[in-house]
Amino acid sequence: MRAMVLRGGQKLAVEELARPAPKPGWVLVKVRACGICGSDLHMARYADERMAAARASGRAAAFPMDLDRGVVMGHEWVAEIVEVGPEVEGWEPGDRVTMVPPHDHLPGLPRSGEGGPGYSADYPGGYGQYMIVRGDRLLRVPDHVPDLVAATTEPCAVGLHAVREARLASDEHVLVMGAGPIGMMTLLWLKHDGVRHVTVSDYSAQRRELAARHGADLVLDPAVDDVAARVAEAAGGPPAVVFECVGVEGTIQQAMELVAPRGRVVVVGVCMTPDQMTPMLAIVKHLTLQFLYAYTAAEVEETLAALADGRVDTSALVTRTVSLDDLPGAFRALSDPADCKVMVEFA
Amino acid sequence: MRAMVLRGGQKLAVEELARPAPKPGWVLVKVRACGICGSDLHMARYADERMAAARASGRAAAFPMDLDRGVVMGHEWVAEIVEVGPEVEGWEPGDRVTMVPPHDHLPGLPRSGEGGPGYSADYPGGYGQYMIVRGDRLLRVPDHVPDLVAATTEPCAVGLHAVREARLASDEHVLVMGAGPIGMMTLLWLKHDGVRHVTVSDYSAQRRELAARHGADLVLDPAVDDVAARVAEAAGGPPAVVFECVGVEGTIQQAMELVAPRGRVVVVGVCMTPDQMTPMLAIVKHLTLQFLYAYTAAEVEETLAALADGRVDTSALVTRTVSLDDLPGAFRALSDPADCKVMVEFA
Repeated sequence: MRAMVLRGGQKLAVEELARPAPKPGWVLVKVRACGICGSDLHMARYADERMAAARASGRAAAFPMDLDRGVVMGHEWVAEIVEVGPEVEGWEPGDRVTMVPPHDHLPGLPRSGEGGPGYSADYPGGYGQYMIVRGDRLLRVPDHVPDLVAATTEPCAVGLHAVREARLASDEHVLVMGAGPIGMMTLLWLKHDGVRHVTVSDYSAQRRELAARHGADLVLDPAVDDVAARVAEAAGGPPAVVFECVGVEGTIQQAMELVAPRGRVVVVGVCMTPDQMTPMLAIVKHLTLQFLYAYTAAEVEETLAALADGRVDTSALVTRTVSLDDLPGAFRALSDPADCKVMVEFA
Repeated sequence: MRAMVLRGGQKLAVEELARPAPKPGWVLVKVRACGICGSDLHMARYADERMAAARASGRAAAFPMDLDRGVVMGHEWVAEIVEVGPEVEGWEPGDRVTMVPPHDHLPGLPRSGEGGPGYSADYPGGYGQYMIVRGDRLLRVPDHVPDLVAATTEPCAVGLHAVREARLASDEHVLVMGAGPIGMMTLLWLKHDGVRHVTVSDYSAQRRELAARHGADLVLDPAVDDVAARVAEAAGGPPAVVFECVGVEGTIQQAMELVAPRGRVVVVGVCMTPDQMTPMLAIVKHLTLQFLYAYTAAEVEETLAALADGRVDTSALVTRTVSLDDLPGAFRALSDPADCKVMVEFA
């Protein structure tokens, strides 16, 4: 099979790999589409730092990547079953399925060899033509849900987790920093949950337009707008919660400056490098910083149900699709802020 | 009157100042004792940074210090009323009183001119012989409570606030980093609240001994002990909550490394300088960082009641008293980790 492989030294290339075979309890699936996640872009660039953080967290076993052997990333996938291994019940070739929810408590993607694709050489992810996944961990995609919507289940669940963990009171209003895929998914769930007033800030005109079309009450350009003043004017004061959905150095500090005293900064963006902040600012404002990772299995199921019945509509967030051959180039180009979610579609 | 005055350029000296006069609604008190707070030590060193943080937080009005005019710090005081101003009811000369709880919502010490001493030239704090405080904001000290205990009400309330904000579940165990006054006050309330297992770490042998005498289940020296391994061995796993009571660069990152996945880091120590951390570590561990400031008025009242009835005993934490003339020297010497709480006692 063909797959985009990440090797040491930030090398990305489409290579020919052995197709994995389903063992007892597992199924072989053919990937139909897979979204490019910001964390994959980060990974391609900061793989060494990420492995170091995983080791420091005591959870290195959950990240069994080996950059020398090669890694096939991709976890925002929709796929079709092509072969059902022994001891699997309830699934047939042709069934369309999506992501494997985390099998243990948060945090965690499924571990390679325990639940599904996990970025190791033996359990390739959705940037390859085929994957093996455990039969008892699959979610069935209803027939009427398009591939490109089903493949947004995973990032959409990240947005749901962020909104639910923020535990907003009915009178609280919020700021979403960044209208990339995660910021947009967060916006969709905030509007779904009826949050009073949502401001979205982004440097990209295209992304601001996307946010406005998806219900943002106010969209701002940090390059020209005084974000603090405009939010206070429109919503009556500083935001009780700032969702940090950018994930580069300095944005957590910015969020701390913008949020209301006693407010919460919900860190959804993934900054892979060390970052600087001013604890004194957080102290005098009595702030809480919530660093989030992934979602619960129940949140994944709720997300797929909401996408299926139309309560949450991610269809306009997929702004571009590419072929597998074009995927390495898309990785290099995704700093283009005109895009939101970019996906690889398999022929 | 005489007072220790902080001026620009980190100058501390005992000077002769005009005695403030009580206006309507206010009383004049003579200070009996006042504890040295770590934040005052920080302030003397980092006054400019603190003012900058206050301005960035939009709360500069709550910190009306003017380093050119001179600042009299000191907020951990017990005092005796010497003159009752017009329109004050319920107080007489000779009544012994302690700190003014915050008059508005957290965060905030009372603002100068609104509630009591506030580190401005016109409303000097407890490092001077006399202060003016608002009559309707005083707490009466029961006769049997010694001055040196009553003057611990304020830092003890900080410990109570930290423990209550952590919202510990009954099966959770904790680590307190630092056995200075704030770490010790936190320990006292953790034991008061019956927390299952409390580890305290400190580089100072004297402070570790103090922690052991006050109920710490395990005391560790980070210089020689493997803190993570020892806590896990003694309490069955990493701590659900780490109370960061040190407040220097790097300790928040250490707390993030030591706390359990999905745990909370409660930041009680006040690091006045910018600090570096690794957001990725907090993300993969799904951590919450709670930055705290001060306490509620109810917590101050609960603290004084607990000190009065002996449920919480801070008497052994005051390891040294000094005279006003020796106070500037004590400020310079308080990096001596043999001490815990040091107080100025007035003749």
